[in-house]
Amino acid sequence: MRNIRIGLIGCGVVGQGIMRLLKENAVSIEARLGGTIEVRRIAARNPEKDRGPYVPAELLTFDPAEVVDDPSVELVVEVAGGVEPTYGYIKRALEAGKSVVTANKALLAARGNELIELAEARGADLYFEAAVAGGVPVIRVLREAFASDRIVAVRGIINGTSNYILSRMTEEGLDFGPALKEAQDKGYAEADPFLDVSGGDAAHKLTILATLAYGAKLDLAQTAVSGIDQVSALDICFAARFGFVIKPLAVARALSDGALDLRVHPALISKKSVLASVNGALNAVYIEGAAVGPCLLSGLGAGALPTAVSVVSDIVDVGRNMHSASGGRVPQRAFRGVTVLTVQDIREHRCRYYLRFSVPDRSGVLGKLASVLGNHQVSIEQMVQEGHATSEPVAVVVLTHPAREGDVQSALKDIAALDLVAAPTAALRIEEL
Amino acid sequence: MRNIRIGLIGCGVVGQGIMRLLKENAVSIEARLGGTIEVRRIAARNPEKDRGPYVPAELLTFDPAEVVDDPSVELVVEVAGGVEPTYGYIKRALEAGKSVVTANKALLAARGNELIELAEARGADLYFEAAVAGGVPVIRVLREAFASDRIVAVRGIINGTSNYILSRMTEEGLDFGPALKEAQDKGYAEADPFLDVSGGDAAHKLTILATLAYGAKLDLAQTAVSGIDQVSALDICFAARFGFVIKPLAVARALSDGALDLRVHPALISKKSVLASVNGALNAVYIEGAAVGPCLLSGLGAGALPTAVSVVSDIVDVGRNMHSASGGRVPQRAFRGVTVLTVQDIREHRCRYYLRFSVPDRSGVLGKLASVLGNHQVSIEQMVQEGHATSEPVAVVVLTHPAREGDVQSALKDIAALDLVAAPTAALRIEEL
Repeated sequence: MRNIRIGLIGCGVVGQGIMRLLKENAVSIEARLGGTIEVRRIAARNPEKDRGPYVPAELLTFDPAEVVDDPSVELVVEVAGGVEPTYGYIKRALEAGKSVVTANKALLAARGNELIELAEARGADLYFEAAVAGGVPVIRVLREAFASDRIVAVRGIINGTSNYILSRMTEEGLDFGPALKEAQDKGYAEADPFLDVSGGDAAHKLTILATLAYGAKLDLAQTAVSGIDQVSALDICFAARFGFVIKPLAVARALSDGALDLRVHPALISKKSVLASVNGALNAVYIEGAAVGPCLLSGLGAGALPTAVSVVSDIVDVGRNMHSASGGRVPQRAFRGVTVLTVQDIREHRCRYYLRFSVPDRSGVLGKLASVLGNHQVSIEQMVQEGHATSEPVAVVVLTHPAREGDVQSALKDIAALDLVAAPTAALRIEEL
Repeated sequence: MRNIRIGLIGCGVVGQGIMRLLKENAVSIEARLGGTIEVRRIAARNPEKDRGPYVPAELLTFDPAEVVDDPSVELVVEVAGGVEPTYGYIKRALEAGKSVVTANKALLAARGNELIELAEARGADLYFEAAVAGGVPVIRVLREAFASDRIVAVRGIINGTSNYILSRMTEEGLDFGPALKEAQDKGYAEADPFLDVSGGDAAHKLTILATLAYGAKLDLAQTAVSGIDQVSALDICFAARFGFVIKPLAVARALSDGALDLRVHPALISKKSVLASVNGALNAVYIEGAAVGPCLLSGLGAGALPTAVSVVSDIVDVGRNMHSASGGRVPQRAFRGVTVLTVQDIREHRCRYYLRFSVPDRSGVLGKLASVLGNHQVSIEQMVQEGHATSEPVAVVVLTHPAREGDVQSALKDIAALDLVAAPTAALRIEEL
């Protein structure tokens, strides 16, 4: 029975969770791996911090290079996060032929192609189940379970912070600010929530999912991203009236012309759809395969232990490869560099839209709105004016028939110029799934 | 680039689906496997049948032995089903050191331990993703994604026929007979539906899931099984009034005393639970891990193409092992023979119960029922008598507090002996999840 010797970079809550699982589940992990896992070195950032009962002090260092360069470390596990300086350490590990397990979505979104290529060239493995949706095993499902299928679409709720905030806004009628504050107080949002609520974090993860699903080299900058900070309690309320909930979606979809539809944004989805009941800090990924049909995966998208489960399962999987000397047994090229795909310009996107106008309550206004929309080929499916307005401006909500995003944008620009609307128009996409 | 040469036993709709995927997705499968898959021989049962456009006639034989014994076949794929004579062919393939991919849950439930042991001894792989829940990748998730965790419970809707029938009964108020007839007409139920509606098929699959989740050798006969044919439209209606839906559940759960709770039966579950909205022919498995928390997987549990996706993905996975000469890289022992687990006698099961009595509409009856239940330590949470009864007998529905199954059974036996009830009492378990 062979020993797998690992080094850990990052010793925050996830790092400590990894150490805990390795200890508590040592017997079953050993049986399932067919060998033991020995932690040789752990790099932490802050020498002062308490690291709980699972981190032996004698393994600690404050220099990640000591982990990477330790000749006894065969497998580097990285849960420190961030692109720099982490990139340099991961690269160095792979160059030395060491396999890497990482939870670092920002790094993968920015330099994943290069790192995977490097791993492949050195016969090393680069595994990253924890980088997307924490404990939800979506990477394995795309890479292995559906290796035989053609993926039609991947739609996910993959940012727990955004989902928690929108869920609380929906349940309690809170506006964005107070809901964010509550999420921060409860530890669901960072002190600086920008990357989460802006959609940036979800875009990192979507880039990884789309790369796996479509085998294309994708650039993070190609994704159309908008955040949940644009959603108001009023929009959630109107959406409900039409049978929708508003969810923070990430979408990668194969279009019939061969291009890829790639978007992160809050969207109206039917209350009856499978993603509608994914609430709170849950994550979910809804995959449609050409042959397998629909497949929903949901679970905890963050948290020390769910993330640690994905990391340690990756260690077990890479460890099995090390045992059987089959590093690189899953060809990575197929999952990133086979296809060259064009990403559709978001202005060409077609869907139904939810538009909320703030307008004075006087005759002729609805007609003018309708006529500008019509001039831009945006046809109206439903129009509702808020009843019992006690003060101006009133809200007029329009649901459109499927329209081209560029046309909707032009119409909204013309309407803004009309000196008719009292506040910026809220515009949200409706996603059919 | 190496060729993987396979032989196929079974050429019905699933077999044809496999051939179709291998042809239609040949390019992406080749990239993801790092090699090609060549079908060398196909065993069919009926020489007369039309096999569609994907099955080359020159590969056909009507003797499975010709597939197994063909020296050019390295990997045997079995989708013929049944325990005999299939068992003999699979065994012969494994004895010859050939890896096997199978969708045969009945065979695995009956002889899985022995076959896995044999595969391991010969360094061959035995993969069976398609045996449980068709296109839902639950085997991989248990074997790989959660290899680092301890499984608390696995609850599934894993018989699509039963789920379709109960869904139709719920949606349309149909009784069991007409709903079964509709399922047969639509192809969701076999001409002989016994194995599906009796819970037998789900018990096969549950044995496989529990073996993987708990690493125990389990005997199919240890599972407490009851079918959905005992459920009436009236029960579904009453259940709804209390906020429940009735679903065909399969449950494997670790008990605090180390024993295993293993059951297949229709159960009342809260309308708000994650499994409540799994309708029609969908399957779902809800896994609770000690560290990862809740994880729901859902998708199509049957059908030629979803099943074929799981089979071909297994071929790709085993093929990757063949390429890297790492057959047996996942130690199987951990998933079947490590632990010896006692399965709890169903009489010791504790849960809330739904009881529906058919009784005459006269005073004193409710008191008598309550007193017999009380004599057996079955305490009543709610009791409802059907309003506006136009004729006797009337329905009295009782929801109990958590009670011991053995006590409930004894109470029902005493009540039956009272000459009070006009028809057998309906008794269903309530599952909290």
